[in-house]
Amino acid sequence: MNLYSLIRDVKDFPTEGILFKDITPLLQDREGLRASIDQIAEKLEGVEFDLVVGPESRGFIFGVPTAYKLGKGFVPVRKPGKLPYEHISETYALEYGTSTIEMHIDAIKPGQKVVIVDDLLATGGTTRAMVNLIEKVGGEVAKIVFVIELDSLNGRSVLEGYEVESLLHY
Amino acid sequence: MNLYSLIRDVKDFPTEGILFKDITPLLQDREGLRASIDQIAEKLEGVEFDLVVGPESRGFIFGVPTAYKLGKGFVPVRKPGKLPYEHISETYALEYGTSTIEMHIDAIKPGQKVVIVDDLLATGGTTRAMVNLIEKVGGEVAKIVFVIELDSLNGRSVLEGYEVESLLHY
Repeated sequence: MNLYSLIRDVKDFPTEGILFKDITPLLQDREGLRASIDQIAEKLEGVEFDLVVGPESRGFIFGVPTAYKLGKGFVPVRKPGKLPYEHISETYALEYGTSTIEMHIDAIKPGQKVVIVDDLLATGGTTRAMVNLIEKVGGEVAKIVFVIELDSLNGRSVLEGYEVESLLHY
Repeated sequence: MNLYSLIRDVKDFPTEGILFKDITPLLQDREGLRASIDQIAEKLEGVEFDLVVGPESRGFIFGVPTAYKLGKGFVPVRKPGKLPYEHISETYALEYGTSTIEMHIDAIKPGQKVVIVDDLLATGGTTRAMVNLIEKVGGEVAKIVFVIELDSLNGRSVLEGYEVESLLHY
């Protein structure tokens, strides 16, 4: 199934001059949702891993069904103040200012293999910070899969050394 | 599978005096994640519907895999400023102040049947606001399923007239 037809361009969101790739038509289409998860799972064929890690909140949308389908657990990475238990955090640079993400300290056991699933690879800042969190607790990143990759932003450059695949490229 | 053993009590989160029910041990357990989605799906056996609707962001965690498993579409309800396309909003009262949620205007077609899936029924405020959003665009709420229900808060009272079921009760 061709998923491109279910991605909607929205002009000037979140700020002027940005052409936003809206995934909600894909999600509300039963065939589109099913195909997107199945295609992520195909990218993980032959990859040995224990857990899917996904960031709040669009990473939850694709990460949890992927974990469900493949019989793995899911680890949420969240914005500050959302995780109730002891956690570690990672702060990274944005175009203007910084952002911080958090993960529970017992989310991944040393030596466990994980895959990261998210909706979008733009500059790669969030994903790089997730890799750092995972490695801090002794986890190993086996693969990273995105639904959409914005090739011109070259987010892959900050993920060098990791296996990265995306379903759709713009 | 008994899911109670995978829910962790965290004291004084998010504020002093609250005993928070942490679902992350359930999510990271492959059997627990699978069983929770399968048990939600069991609650929907015999229910005719087109879409699962879930609120940001823990509603995404359980709602999307349920939609995936049952071959339905998924509609995200989000916090203000997150949805890129034309949307409607609903503001509701909290203990202190108010909160607002949003949904795309074309997320549900008039006459479509939906089920709401979320992690927690507490006072029911968010869920009631979701019902209002769904009915505003002509959708019909066929059933509402929660993973956890805090019985003492009696959130069911604001959802009277709707079929409500929960996997776990405290």
